[in-house]
Order: sequence, then C-alpha cells, then structure tokens
Amino acid sequence: MNEKAYELGAKRSEIRELYEYGVKRKAEIGEKNVFDFSLGNPAAPAPEEVKEEIIKLLGRDPVAVHGYTSAAGDITVRRAIADYINGKFAAEEKAELIYLTCGAAAALSAAIGGILKRGEEIIVFAPFFPEYKVFIENAGGSVKIVPCGKDFIPDAEILRKEITENTRAAIINSPNNPTGAVIPEKRLKEIAAVLKEKSEEYSSPVYLIADEPYRDVVYDGVSVPFPTKYYDDTIVCYSFSKSLSLPGERIGYAIVGSKCRDAEKVFLSLAGSARAQGYVCAPALFQKIIPALLGKTADISVYKENRDILLNGLKETGYEVVKPDGAFYLFVKALEKDAKAFSEMAKKYELLVVPSDSFGVEGYVRIATCVSRETAVNSLSAFRKLYGDYKNERT
Amino acid sequence: MNEKAYELGAKRSEIRELYEYGVKRKAEIGEKNVFDFSLGNPAAPAPEEVKEEIIKLLGRDPVAVHGYTSAAGDITVRRAIADYINGKFAAEEKAELIYLTCGAAAALSAAIGGILKRGEEIIVFAPFFPEYKVFIENAGGSVKIVPCGKDFIPDAEILRKEITENTRAAIINSPNNPTGAVIPEKRLKEIAAVLKEKSEEYSSPVYLIADEPYRDVVYDGVSVPFPTKYYDDTIVCYSFSKSLSLPGERIGYAIVGSKCRDAEKVFLSLAGSARAQGYVCAPALFQKIIPALLGKTADISVYKENRDILLNGLKETGYEVVKPDGAFYLFVKALEKDAKAFSEMAKKYELLVVPSDSFGVEGYVRIATCVSRETAVNSLSAFRKLYGDYKNERT
Repeated sequence: MNEKAYELGAKRSEIRELYEYGVKRKAEIGEKNVFDFSLGNPAAPAPEEVKEEIIKLLGRDPVAVHGYTSAAGDITVRRAIADYINGKFAAEEKAELIYLTCGAAAALSAAIGGILKRGEEIIVFAPFFPEYKVFIENAGGSVKIVPCGKDFIPDAEILRKEITENTRAAIINSPNNPTGAVIPEKRLKEIAAVLKEKSEEYSSPVYLIADEPYRDVVYDGVSVPFPTKYYDDTIVCYSFSKSLSLPGERIGYAIVGSKCRDAEKVFLSLAGSARAQGYVCAPALFQKIIPALLGKTADISVYKENRDILLNGLKETGYEVVKPDGAFYLFVKALEKDAKAFSEMAKKYELLVVPSDSFGVEGYVRIATCVSRETAVNSLSAFRKLYGDYKNERT
Repeated sequence: MNEKAYELGAKRSEIRELYEYGVKRKAEIGEKNVFDFSLGNPAAPAPEEVKEEIIKLLGRDPVAVHGYTSAAGDITVRRAIADYINGKFAAEEKAELIYLTCGAAAALSAAIGGILKRGEEIIVFAPFFPEYKVFIENAGGSVKIVPCGKDFIPDAEILRKEITENTRAAIINSPNNPTGAVIPEKRLKEIAAVLKEKSEEYSSPVYLIADEPYRDVVYDGVSVPFPTKYYDDTIVCYSFSKSLSLPGERIGYAIVGSKCRDAEKVFLSLAGSARAQGYVCAPALFQKIIPALLGKTADISVYKENRDILLNGLKETGYEVVKPDGAFYLFVKALEKDAKAFSEMAKKYELLVVPSDSFGVEGYVRIATCVSRETAVNSLSAFRKLYGDYKNERT
C-alpha cells in the first residue's frame, strides 16, 4: 500500500486522540464530569429554516432534487451566493466562478490542487489548521510555516521575508482556528501589498487562499473584511459547517475572485483538481437549501457566552489568554513550556485541552468553546485547581 | 496554475459535451423532439422511504443528525451495511473495514490513492468508465488498458499476459458501464485465480477493485457474485446513486475485504488517502437513512422496459447490440468504423448517443436507457432512418 496514505490514516490527529480519550472517560465517570474542550463540533442547533427548506424540497420531484447537479453545483444556488456576497460586501463576484464543494476542506484541497505545481510551496501562518499541510503535500507541494505577529495576526513584514519565487500561495484563516483572531482591514491591506509586490517581482501570481469557515461566527460587531476586495488573485474557501451547524453535511464553496488573473482558467483548474480527487458534485439536497439560508446562522450567542465565561474566568485565575473576536476557540498559554505535558496534567482535573504543537506553535493549548454553558461554567474550578498546582510547584 | 488540473477541468468529457448540446437543442426544437441518450442520470424516482427516513431524522436532535460523524462514517450505519451484505451474500465483512464515502467515485479515488505507489499501474478492462484513468493518474500511477473477451467480459487469459510486477490492482465493473455486462461466477473465479497466482509470483498483492454502482440494477433474475468471496485482496466500491436514485447526494462506501492481507492497514491507507483529498465524512443525513433502505431500490423495472424496447427495436432494424444483464446502457455497434462520425450522423435525427472512444474501445456507441418510456419508443423511427441512410449509402 501507499505508506504516506497509511501514515495519514493510522496517525490520528492529536485532537481526535484527545476526543477519543474523552469518549472513554465520559463512559467511565459520567459525561458531566469530563470537561471536553477537544473538538470544534458546533453545539448550537441548525436554524429551523434548514428543516423547513429540506421538507419543502422533499415535496418536489425527487429525480430533480436528488439528481446530479453540474460538477460546480446548481447554477441557481451559485447565483444566489454571488448576489448575497456582492450585496453584503459590495464585491463583484461571479456565479460562474463559484464552485460548490463538500465543505471547506474539499474547497481547499481543490484550490490547492488547482494552482500548485509539484515542488512549489505554500505559506501558512502559525498557528494554523493542521490539515493545510496534508492537502498541500498531497498536491505534491511543501508547506512553509511562517510565524504570525505577536498579536497572532499574519504580519506583512514577516511574510515579505519568507516569500520566494517558489511560493505559489499564502493561506490566511480569519477568524482563525485555533486563536479566534480576525485579520483587521489594515493588516489585510498590508499583506495584499506584499503579495502584489512579489507577484510583480516574479511575474507570476502568488495567490491568497482565504479559508473562511468561521467568517460568520464573530462577536461584538467585529466584521471580517472580504479578501477579494483587497487582493485580486484570491480564492475564498467557505463552509456552512459552522455558520449553519451542518458540519456533517459537507456543504461549502470556493470563489475564484473575479479579478483574478485568468480567473476562468484558475476556476477550471480548481474544477479539474476536484474531479481528479473523485468529487462529482456537492450534496444536491444541501446545495438547494442554501439560497433560503444565506445570511442566517445558528444561534451563535451561546459561543459568545461561553467565550466570555471562560475568557473572564481564566484571566481572573491568572491564565494568559488571547481574546478571540470570532470562531469558537480560546488560545491559552500553557503553564509550562511543554504544551503536551500541560495537556496531560490538565487531564488530572478532567480538562481536555489540545496542545498547540498540532497547530505549529509551542506552549499553548486550544479550548473549543462550542460546548454547553454548564461545561464552561463548571470547568472553571478545575482550571483553578490546575493553576494552583502549577503555582504551588513554583513556590 | 496546475496544467494537468486545468486540462481536466477545461476538457469536458464527450458525454458532458453531448449532454450540453442536448440541452441547447431541446431549447431550440422542444424537449420531446430530442432523443437524449447521453447521461446515466437515473430517471426513476428515489423510493418513498428516502423521504420518510429524512423526515424521521429531521425530528431528532439536529446537532446529532447534522454533526460530524467519524471520518469512516457512523458506526451504526457501517454495522447495518456489514450485516446486510453478510446476510445477503453469506460473506464475512466487518463494519470496521467499511468506509462510507461521497459516492463510488470517492470510494475509488480513496482506494486507488490508498494502495497505489507512484509509478505503479492499474489494469482496467476496456470498455471502461473513463474516470478510472483520471483517479489513477491523480494518484501518480498509470492505467494499463486491457481488452475484454469478445463477449465484453474480462478474460483471465488476457489478464494473465498483461499483469506485471508493476501492477498494483485490476478494476472490474459489473454490471458494466457502458455495456451492461455482468461478470458471471465462472469468469470471476478464473480472474481471481490469475490474480492469486500473480500475487504469489511477485510476493505482493495485486488487488481487485470491484466498482459496483450498478450491483442492484440487474434484470431477469441475474445476480452479481460478491467478489470478496472469490478473491481475498478485494476492495468493493459501492454507491447508492443508482440503486436509490440519489446520484447528487453522494453516498456510497468502500469495503476492504476482511480476508485482505493486512486488511486493517489497507483500510487505514484508504482512510488516509480520503483525508488527504479533503474528505471529512460522507454526508451525515444521507448516511443515516441507509440502514432503513438496505435491500430497497428505486423502481428499476422502467429501465428494463426501456432496455427491451430499445434492444428489440434496434435488433429488428438491423443493429448489432450487446444484450445487457444490468445497468442502464446499451452498447450498440456503430454503422461505420468511426464512432464519433456515427454519433455526429445520429444528430441529424436528434439522436444523442455517446461514441465508445471515451470508454477505450472503437466502433460502438453507448445509449443510456434511463430515459422516459416515450423517448425510448419514439426514438425507434429515428434509429430506423439513421440505419436507412447507411444502407442506402452502401447500395
């Protein structure tokens, strides 16, 4: 068999390992007694309209509803998405350059496979979603990990030093998993300027891939700038997994920016890459519910509430926490250098937190706040005990 | 961008080209006046139970229903499939070795990527489904096209001559697209014997990949032997697209035969290959309807009726047709050597038939019989006129 594939299949991610440990532990001591912050599985139910739309569609001709759509997806749905995006962001995207996908992961793997030539590299900013590396390497490329600025936001000056003629793209992820950081407009402009400068220098586009599954999960009125407005050679990868709490249904899209150089060629390359990976079309029923759900989200106020409970509780205790503007994660400084050891220690109090090593940085843990309010509240005393242990050790 | 991906995206398959021509032509002269036999899009509606099961699931906790499942799929669903298969075929498959996929295409691309090492080859028997080549090449391998026997069924003696140490697998497709031929038990045994002999000779398994989206679309009581019973190193790829008329919903599975050498390792390699291609899980809602639908199919009697109308009509006219035992295609000998030219000629009578060149053989056309009865009946006079033209030319 293929050893590389075997390794990817056999080596569960640390997140999964922790989750599986949690399942076992919950069976042993009861669900309420384990504070499982391992997985980014949305806890808010899908909006009621999801059900309503599905039932409406089930009343129509099943051959049309469940039949193949074109590979890029139902054109009516793609038009609705273009109209929505253009209306909301005053953008100028085209339905013909929107490709419906089985979630953001499929959008990313199609986009990466479409633009990357064997041996080229793609820049990712640490901390980053670990599957980027998997998709990039599967396309025959290599990943170049570049640190964020001290504020956990990609920094144009750091980027400038790292781009080479061999760089085909940079991936940004805003709001970010695992930090929840949102890239503000000013920083996006600076990043765009560097990408533009380097594309001109090398006479070859350095693409911006914007991975945006958390675009609509933001708090306190923060908004996420729409990247095609700042940089022409952009591909946006979106998923309804988090915004509509449909992660298992695999529905999302890729937009090739209408001002992308040779936009249609880039789109067709993305399409060819998806085809080669066995994608036929995004799930038809879930494609068709989308027009009625654009602009709607699950009730994300529960995530904000959890964020505030945990953010305040942890800070008061003495933890150093990055305040997230979006997504449903908290990035917390571990109380010792070795985040894995810290994560192990946390298990003593039934706290399941993901060491940051998976995300390409050391010394932090990720806490997924998409849990029940009860878990958030009740975990605080466990976090306090854990903190106490470290304090006592030091004194 | 990636030129190979661009080509795959830009070069529509001939089937799609013909289909798009049909869409245009129907708009010009009316739907009824075009005899569109281009696409294998199931024409029978999904069984009523699909709707019932979906509505039942929509009454449950949406977080659980639409949430991520494990990458291989919901274990309850996988157990139901294993039980069903084992009961029906007296097989001994294991739920733990069943991987739910986004249809058979995803099952194939995951299986191929899981077992193939760069530079190895996979044997396909012509005529064959053209995407095999795309998936194999995407995995860094090459396709070796081997002819079937004269009866359009893979032949063990031909196979024996073509296998080399570099052959990692052979793909069979029964019932076959485009011929509808079913591989009988005797032939499957002979093929298995050759694969076994060669695996021993090379001390390395030559896998059998059985692509079976049409397994449950068979006529006249024909049954399709279950391949893991005849050959240990088998991976079965199945889809509910055709049996349940859900092609757009992307739900199927791969089974790594329980007697496969290092079955668990093969399974994990398949899982790793799926992961690297951006698959997260098969669509969750459609996973969960499967247990209630095992053993059920859409009303495939409409395909048989069409098959008989067209088979008899064409034969009476003078065409040479391969009688299909399954699937919903007729493979008809073109009336001139050049199948593309024949397909072009057929357009004169608004007949849209796919030249066999796409399937790796010359001189035939594929007629998809998953059309309305009316289309099948009304097309016959057009086929007669086309035949007349060729006859008159000759005399």
